[in-house]
Parts: sequence; structure tokens; C-alpha cells
Amino acid sequence: MSKIKVAIVGASGYTGLELIKLLLLHPHFELSYVGTSEGGGRLGDLHASLLGVADMEVLKSDPKEIAKHCKLAFLALPHKTAMEFAKALLSLNVKVVDLSADYRLSLESYEKHYGAHLDKEHLKEAVYGLSEINREKIKKASLVANPGCYPTASILATIPFARFIKKNTPIFIDAKSGVSGRGKKVSESEHFVNINENFLSYNALKHRHEPEISEILNTQNISNGIFFAPHLLPITRGMLVSVFFQVEGKIDALQTLKDFYKNAPFVRVRDEAVSLKLTVGTNFCDIYATQKDDVVFVSSSIDNLLRGASSQALLNANLMFGFDEDAGIPKIAYVP
Amino acid sequence: MSKIKVAIVGASGYTGLELIKLLLLHPHFELSYVGTSEGGGRLGDLHASLLGVADMEVLKSDPKEIAKHCKLAFLALPHKTAMEFAKALLSLNVKVVDLSADYRLSLESYEKHYGAHLDKEHLKEAVYGLSEINREKIKKASLVANPGCYPTASILATIPFARFIKKNTPIFIDAKSGVSGRGKKVSESEHFVNINENFLSYNALKHRHEPEISEILNTQNISNGIFFAPHLLPITRGMLVSVFFQVEGKIDALQTLKDFYKNAPFVRVRDEAVSLKLTVGTNFCDIYATQKDDVVFVSSSIDNLLRGASSQALLNANLMFGFDEDAGIPKIAYVP
Amino acid sequence: MSKIKVAIVGASGYTGLELIKLLLLHPHFELSYVGTSEGGGRLGDLHASLLGVADMEVLKSDPKEIAKHCKLAFLALPHKTAMEFAKALLSLNVKVVDLSADYRLSLESYEKHYGAHLDKEHLKEAVYGLSEINREKIKKASLVANPGCYPTASILATIPFARFIKKNTPIFIDAKSGVSGRGKKVSESEHFVNINENFLSYNALKHRHEPEISEILNTQNISNGIFFAPHLLPITRGMLVSVFFQVEGKIDALQTLKDFYKNAPFVRVRDEAVSLKLTVGTNFCDIYATQKDDVVFVSSSIDNLLRGASSQALLNANLMFGFDEDAGIPKIAYVP
Amino acid sequence: MSKIKVAIVGASGYTGLELIKLLLLHPHFELSYVGTSEGGGRLGDLHASLLGVADMEVLKSDPKEIAKHCKLAFLALPHKTAMEFAKALLSLNVKVVDLSADYRLSLESYEKHYGAHLDKEHLKEAVYGLSEINREKIKKASLVANPGCYPTASILATIPFARFIKKNTPIFIDAKSGVSGRGKKVSESEHFVNINENFLSYNALKHRHEPEISEILNTQNISNGIFFAPHLLPITRGMLVSVFFQVEGKIDALQTLKDFYKNAPFVRVRDEAVSLKLTVGTNFCDIYATQKDDVVFVSSSIDNLLRGASSQALLNANLMFGFDEDAGIPKIAYVP
Repeated sequence: MSKIKVAIVGASGYTGLELIKLLLLHPHFELSYVGTSEGGGRLGDLHASLLGVADMEVLKSDPKEIAKHCKLAFLALPHKTAMEFAKALLSLNVKVVDLSADYRLSLESYEKHYGAHLDKEHLKEAVYGLSEINREKIKKASLVANPGCYPTASILATIPFARFIKKNTPIFIDAKSGVSGRGKKVSESEHFVNINENFLSYNALKHRHEPEISEILNTQNISNGIFFAPHLLPITRGMLVSVFFQVEGKIDALQTLKDFYKNAPFVRVRDEAVSLKLTVGTNFCDIYATQKDDVVFVSSSIDNLLRGASSQALLNANLMFGFDEDAGIPKIAYVP
Repeated sequence: MSKIKVAIVGASGYTGLELIKLLLLHPHFELSYVGTSEGGGRLGDLHASLLGVADMEVLKSDPKEIAKHCKLAFLALPHKTAMEFAKALLSLNVKVVDLSADYRLSLESYEKHYGAHLDKEHLKEAVYGLSEINREKIKKASLVANPGCYPTASILATIPFARFIKKNTPIFIDAKSGVSGRGKKVSESEHFVNINENFLSYNALKHRHEPEISEILNTQNISNGIFFAPHLLPITRGMLVSVFFQVEGKIDALQTLKDFYKNAPFVRVRDEAVSLKLTVGTNFCDIYATQKDDVVFVSSSIDNLLRGASSQALLNANLMFGFDEDAGIPKIAYVP
Repeated sequence: MSKIKVAIVGASGYTGLELIKLLLLHPHFELSYVGTSEGGGRLGDLHASLLGVADMEVLKSDPKEIAKHCKLAFLALPHKTAMEFAKALLSLNVKVVDLSADYRLSLESYEKHYGAHLDKEHLKEAVYGLSEINREKIKKASLVANPGCYPTASILATIPFARFIKKNTPIFIDAKSGVSGRGKKVSESEHFVNINENFLSYNALKHRHEPEISEILNTQNISNGIFFAPHLLPITRGMLVSVFFQVEGKIDALQTLKDFYKNAPFVRVRDEAVSLKLTVGTNFCDIYATQKDDVVFVSSSIDNLLRGASSQALLNANLMFGFDEDAGIPKIAYVP
Repeated sequence: MSKIKVAIVGASGYTGLELIKLLLLHPHFELSYVGTSEGGGRLGDLHASLLGVADMEVLKSDPKEIAKHCKLAFLALPHKTAMEFAKALLSLNVKVVDLSADYRLSLESYEKHYGAHLDKEHLKEAVYGLSEINREKIKKASLVANPGCYPTASILATIPFARFIKKNTPIFIDAKSGVSGRGKKVSESEHFVNINENFLSYNALKHRHEPEISEILNTQNISNGIFFAPHLLPITRGMLVSVFFQVEGKIDALQTLKDFYKNAPFVRVRDEAVSLKLTVGTNFCDIYATQKDDVVFVSSSIDNLLRGASSQALLNANLMFGFDEDAGIPKIAYVP
């Protein structure tokens, strides 16, 4: 069977690199087009680690050129830029998995947090690409909005408890991410000396992933207020999220997780506290829960660049093209 | 004025080392006795960093020997062992600052979490050594129970809101500590490879610092349930604590902190999210707060070995002997 | 074509884990036997990262059981233990790739540095498994002595200059390794606090890899004295080696590397200083050289657990069974 | 005795911050003027760690204003800018300790590596501020050229062997520095992700500290060729330097160090391999040596910002004003 040709638009960043790495090994997709905003050079120039591994040309991203051969494009672009490409590609019958925030929120919420939306038409039909809740919709989608990293870990930790969470009480999410989550931008905040041996919160209760979490939980019958405080870990990759909430009635929190995810191929419920490092390099979300009185504490961990971005995007692409959900999806952690 | 001679019992660990470092520079105390469980060698043998700095003999800890010259002893010992020494030293008229958990809790709570207490008599008179709430009592105390690191950061973040926290709602504390908080013990959990580029929770909702926080907050009119989840940061020292709770009525959270701590010499209220690294090397507790709806998020940071142990112990000793509170107390962070 | 069944003996350590990870994805080998000194449990118990990935039983290593199905065994064992297993397995017609030092040195050198050798017979026929110098011999070998990590990086950096290095002058090797090179042993030296933000040399001019480097270089016509100083990097994996020597006559050091390795599939000569991180996760050895006056500086980098152990072992196995040299050999770095 | 007023010119960088930290605690100097290129704000704005510690105004650096009160200025400026200030300050009778490279080299060497020199007059009278070789000259100097960090560690490791090093053989220096040595500049090279879990050489055999080392060793009767290869460690501060050379005749390398430094207050000769972390926070240079055949390996460690810059500058100032050499000089490492 010949492979399906796909494109990456925005190949210079970390999620772009992860997509390249995954697609070079994929059994059914063929990486056929690598685009950046400027184009130029070859893969080994763009990402020094790929020298001697793959030698494709890097092109200036052009929807028409993509549409000539590719049936799908992954957009690893800043928001706003993403929707321009999505609009153009969809009109040329190229399916899109968008890793930006552009199609994740309702119009109202999007415009409140990100400004004017320029592709309202497709926004309506976009499917939120979390297979654990939208598997069947993703299979039929032309446009998948790939979830944010924090929302992925936070939503997976919370939805198993939808029936139990006490109404009208807040859900607190204390999240911690490695630095690669900030992308490659170079500023004082990412200077090694300012991160190494340091730890801090940022945008507490004001982060743009908060409405994403809140809206998606709403679709899963969790309408509680979401209070989200992200922190920056002095590590390169990985994310660990703590969720605290009150429940009504008697539950066994850990068993609730196990029951909910018993058929989920990429959620591992652990009997002991999850360890971020065990998920780095994979598409797994590891989850653990414990409880005291009426309070439940859930801890979930993902690789922010894979399950929080690129491997989840690829899994969505698998579903969109009828491939096995786990085809080419990484399961083996980098550990040690 | 001749200096007051003091002893360190349990000088081999990290908090013992910090006490040595502080006392070598103190204007009014003289480090006169350095004891370990075995004794032997000199300071530069016990701690290689002290070679060429100080050349005292290291002795096998002996209360009678201590009492010959010293007016105060710092106990940097495991719980249980600490109370044996405290009991003996107090009976010999040596004042004690105990860095263990042995005199921090009520008898009932202690015995529930740590087992039988062997010095109930002194337990009654021990003063909890958090100067922000007990300054006057500490001045008159013979026995000070030095607070735990997590309780220090958690309590300081919470007490300014005593009047505002909504009754009968939980207070959630998501705490993160550097590895030095675990002491020098050598086990798989402290192996570099298992901590580096990793992050995890441990003892969530079951940590022994939870009752300590809860009991002390109770004395400050905060009787809400405390739900405490500690995490291990891949750094050597420093601690950052996030506290989430609901409030009643209108408050300006940041201003509340500023008002409460306007005369506190070792609490710095920051206008921006606190950064762990800015407190490492000092006795400062840096605090920041923000809010949304009826929820307040407080973030506090300390050096777990200094404000969370040794410099706080020294500050208590200053108070016990009528010295300036800040005599010899470090204010200048190690940064960068 | 049915796969060749292989065994791992000593699966609990880091190199054992890497072998498991590689073999689970290999196109021609099937991991059929996973042995440890005690046996018991399943893969996910032995290595928590493998939960949900593979579910094999872990057995108490037994040569006879291995020989029932397996045609090859990888020995990831301490020296001395390795030769016991090698001897038994070879006598049962199981080919062996030994990752220990047991078959790397001449008898004389081995006994000087490691003590008595118990399998002198096989020692004679063992092939040193560095494909860049012994490809054809490895293809015919029943027993391959897989090179040490330091020797791999050091030898590859030096042999291209065999014709140029000035006779009777010393070759200095300043090597730096991540902590995983020390294995899983738990001692004060591997405590996070003692390694984090630290750096130190160890066994300078006295390390047991020095004779290994020296002997192998001798076979490549480099008989200069080798002076080797290893250091411990505060990172988990990766190794960077600096080699300094004097040359006679005019050479272009970088071009010499390029010419020498122009057909080497797993050596990348870089035009700029090599960066350790670009090789971690792969079997590549990246090399760079520069020069001043009659001195050449060569810098080489490998993943100590892969090119320095497990993926190199697998490549040797590929050669021994006539498979493509690069079958299942990782080329894509973990970066970022 | 009233304190001597001093200025810092260039207070915004890491070495400027270290000077501030040291001067705030100095017994005889008073930090009276803090200047930056732009001026504005107060100390706590310039360095967030100093909030609540010191509240001086930060001024736009102006030699005339400095000369009104200060008897000494520390210049923590880029080269070229430094000499402009030095020239102006010296003409106003303000003594200068210059932390830049501007007065360290001979005119010829300076102009070859850094371009035209604009203050040749003072260059002649500048004293190289390494007290171990120039103590008496520093006492009489008006202008001290503070040594570079790499030269400090390299020279101290080498000079004890002046009589023994084999003529006409190269001396190889493999040096490793923490990231703070690069200063605060923000570029891709200092991005956390590019440094964390990484290690690399840079400017091997081409670094501008090589001629500084070579020239100073020449003044100490070591005229061998110097071949210097610096590397970047994934840590914030600290430096470890390995020196390799051949010797003639029989020597005991470690004893040679001990004899040479028996009266040096800030060099510690260690019986075991030096550990970078034991010097961080101090002005100590720790040194260790070992040998094999005719080769000696020396390993030296310093805090690059203190002994490699600011505390060495302060020690020089102590000498220039007749104070005790160790007044206010840090001896207690940050460890753990």
C-alpha cells in the first residue's frame, strides 16, 4: 500500500521537530513536505540532530504546493497564522490537524482571549482532538483542533469524576511544565540561569488554557469553576498536573480511574504517584488519584511535546485516515 | 561583650551544615560544640567544604559536655532522638531549639503520626518558633520547636487571610521542594537519574506536615480542612508552595498580604509571581497572591534549609537571648 | 521470515533496559527471554516505564533455558559474572554479545586490571565489537566483546589520525560522562545533591578504560602513551570526549575525519563543535576536530547507553546474523 | 574608622551583582555608588533578589560623580568600555580594579585579539591582579587588571610546576565553565533547552583567554605552548579546569602543590579529586594533582563569578588599601 503524503507547516519549532521525528518512522504516512515561514536549506540545517538521518528540502510554506501531493497537513504554527493556513488548505481539500489554539474554543471565548477569528466557517466544524472523548467525531473530521498540553493532562485527570464532583465547588489545577512548552523563543525568561535551580508560577488564574479546559469539561458535564495555576519546571520536557476537588458520596478515586480508562490505549492508571519521567518520549498519559475526607487529588503526567502536541496530532491523523489508532505512536519512554 | 557559646547536636546533615555556616559568622553566638552520633575527625572531614575555613573537633554528642560551656543547643536530629537530647539538655539548663518534629504538635496529634512521646513535660511548654506569630513567646522560651519547612511556607501564605477564608471549605496546598529537604539519606529515590528531569508528588494528602499546618492554622483562627500535596523538584534547594482557597466578601488579596506583613522583617510581598531562586540563601519568605471570582491563589517561597530550618532556628535563638532578631541572619540570596 | 529469538541476561540495569527498548522495535530479532539475577514479576514491574508496553515474564537467568529457544544472548552483567554466562551459553551454541569488560582485553591486561580470567579459551576468539575497525570479523564471530563507552568515543576520535600522530608523544583524553554511565548503584556519589550543579574528575590516569583504549589503538598502529581523565557530568546520559595530541607534517584535521568516515553509517563528522545532546537517543558518534600549530583537538560525542553500550551491541548482533547493519538501530535523537 | 567609599561601574551583570553582594557585607569598604549604562531605579529593581536588602539608587555611570566621594571603582564592563572609564577615573585620582580584559595583556597581544587599545599609558602600569604571583605589586597599584576566570584556574594549576615541565612540549588545558560565565546576554546559545542535559566545547584552541594564560605563565618561567579548549557545563556557576603536561625528572605532583601553596590563604590543595561545588560561593581555588609515567594531570576548581571575578577583585582592593587580604572575602561555600 502506498503511503499517504502529508505536510508539516511550521517545521522549525519543537512540535514541528517532533512531528518530523514521528513521521520519519510512520508506517502509513510519508512526510512529503516540510515548510517554514522562510524556507531554505535541508532538514539537517533546520534541526542539527537530523543530519545524516533525512535529507529533505525545507520549503517556504505554500498551501497550493502542499495541495499538489499531500492529503493532510499538520500546522505547528502560532495562533492566527494557523487559521490562515487552515482556511486555505481546507479549501484545497487538504485535511488539517491544527496544533494551535485557533479552533479549540467557542467563537465567543476565542475572541475574548485571542482577538478576532478569521475563519468562523471552519471553526464550527472543527473537532477537538482528544480521542478519549471524541474518537468517532475525529474519524470523520476534516479539521481537528489538537488540544493544548495543559488541557490534555487536566481534562484526562478530571473527566472520570464527572458524576462525583460536588456541584458549585471550585476545581483547582496546579500544573507544572518543562521549558520546551514555551517554544524556542529567546528571552530573558528562558535564559538558562533564570530557569536552572528555579521554579515559579506564571499567569496564575489568568492563563489562556483555563477557558479551554473549562469549555471542554463543560461538554463532559463538569460545569464547576476552573482555577488554573501553571508553573515552570527546570527541565526540558514533561508536564505534571495536580487536580484538587470535592466529591459527593462515597467513591474509590483510584478505582474510578481504572474503570473509566480500562479500554483506553494511551492512558495508564498507576497504583503509585505518577512520575513525569515515565511518560516523556511517549503518547501515554499516566494518572494516579488519592483521597481524604471528601477531597480527591489527581496527578497526571504527559510529555508536553508528544501527548501534549505532536504524537496526539498524529494519533488524530491516524483516526482521520482509518489507520490503527496506535500506528507509529510512541510508547517507549526515553527513561533513563 | 563575650559571645554566647552554643552547640549543634547532629552536625552531619544538611541543616547541621547550614547551622555551622551561619554560626561561624554570627556576631553574638560562638559555635563551641559540634556533635554527631559517632564523633571523630574535624569540621573539614565532616564537611569537605569547610576545609581551611574552620578546624573544630567533631565530638560524640554528650549533653553533659555541652552543658559545661554552652547556653543553647540546636538539635538537628531525627525525631525521637531529638526529644532524648532536649530532655537531657533542658534538665541541665541548656536552652534548646529543636529542628525536629518532636515538639511541634499537640500530644494527641504527635502520637497519632509519630508514635509515643517521651517528653510530655517539656512538650507542654515548647513554643512553636514562627516569629511572625509567636515572637513574644519565643523571647521567653527555653524550648523552641522550630517549624517544618512546608509548614513555614504554607502558614505564612495563609494566615493573612484568616478573616476572609470561607468557612467549611477546603484549603488546598500544592507544595514543591528541592531534594535537600529529604536529607542525606541514600536510597533509590535520591539517585540522580531518578530525580533529574523528573517531577512527582509523594505522600499526597498523607504527609506528616499536614497536621502541623492544620494545628498551627487553628491557633490563628483558620479551622478549615487542610489538603496538602507535596512534590519533589529536580533542584537542590528551595521550596515553592501554592495555596488555593475561597474567600467571602471583597478583598484585594495582594494588598491584604502587604498590610499583614508591613512590619515583618523577613517576609517580602512581591508584586509579581515569586521566584524560588530569589529566596535561596536567605531567611526571606517571598509571597505573592492573585485572585479570580471568590478564589485566591497564594504562592510563597523559601529556602527549605534556611527559613525552613537553620536560619529560622537561629532567628529564634536571637530572640531567646535578646539579640536583634536579624543578627547574623542571611538576607542576600545566592543568585545567580 | 520468522524472527530470530534472543535473550537479555541482566535486564534490570540501564543497558538492559535500553536493550529491551531496542529489541521491542527490532524488525528481525524477537526478544524472547528476559533474565535477571533473581527473576520474578513482569517487564512493567522491572521497569515502570514499560507498563502497558510489553508484558513479558522476567526470569531467573538460566543458560539452559535460554539455549532452548534463543540463538543469541546479550549479556548486560557485571564483569566476572558475564564470563560465567558467556562460557555456558557458547558451549550451548548460543552466540553472545557481551557488554562487560570480560572479553575486551588481552589476558595479561585483563588480569592486571580485573583479576583472574575464567574463560581463557573464548577470550582468544572474542572479537572487539567496534564495527568501524572490525566489521568483517564481527560478521563471523560467535562472541563479541562490546566496547566500553569511553573507549568507543575515544578510539573513534583518534584512529583517523594514526598516520599523523607524532611518535613518542602522549595522547591526552579528557572525557566527560553522564551519570547513567555509573549504573543504578545507590551510593553517596550518585545522590542527586552531590551531582547536581557539580562537576569532578575521578580515577584520573587510573581508570580501567585506559588500557582498553590503549590496546585497541595499538591494533590500529597508534602506540603512543594514553593518558585518560574521566569526569562526571551533572546530566543523565551522553558522553563527550576531548582528545589532544601532536601531529607531524601538514594535515587538515577536519578533512582527515571526513575522508576517514566518508562511508561510516554511524559516524557524523560535524563542521562545528559537537554538541552532546545531538547524539543522545541514537547510535551516532558525532566528531569534530580543530588544530593550532602542531596540535590537534578532537571532540567526539555519543550516547553512553546506546553507542556506548546497547545499540552498538545490537548493531554487532545485526552483523553476526547477516542483517542490515542499521536494522533497528536508532538514528533520531531525543532532542529537544 | 570610617569606611572607604567605593563605586561599581556596570552593576547590572552577574559580576556586578556579586560585587554588590560582597560590598554590602564588607567591614572596610562602603558601597557608595552603583552605576549602570542607563541608570534609573533602585537596587531592588536592578536585581530582584536585593529587594528589602539594600535600597540604593542606581545611577547612570559618571566618572566625575564617582570621583566626588569614591576612592576606588570596580569596573564590571565589557572590554573597550572599561578602558574609557578607567582612563577617566585614574585621571581623577580614583583607583581602579578592572574586571574586563582591557589591561591584562601586552599591547601587542591585546591589539591582535581585541583591536586597538585606547589607553596605552595606563596599560603599562597596570598590575595583573593574581595575588599568588603579584601580591606586593598589587599593594602599590592604582590600576589592577583583574584576571579572567579561565586564566585564574589555569595559571594556579600550572605555576607550581614551572621548574618541572618539560621544555618544548605542549600544555593542554581542558576547561569547563558554568553558564553564568557567559554573562546575561540572551541568545539561542543560552536558551535553557540548548544547555540543559547538554555539553559542548566552544572556541577550542581559539579562545581569547589562551593568550592571557600564555603571557602570564611566561612571566612565571613557563614558555611552553598553551592549547586551551573551553567547554560549557549545564550548571549556573563554577569552573573546573584540567591541565595535562609532561615533566622532567622525578616529582611528587601533589606534594609539589602542597609545598607551593603552603602559605596561600585562598588555595586549598586537596588529597582527592576536587569537586567544583565545594568552591562555589567562595574565593577558594581548590587544586588536586595526580601523575603517571612522565605525565601530570592537575585539576583546579573555582567559582567563576567570585575567584574568577568579583571576590578576587575585592581581594585586590583589600591589598591596594592595606586591609587584611581576606577582609570580607567569602570562604564558606553554598553547598549543599
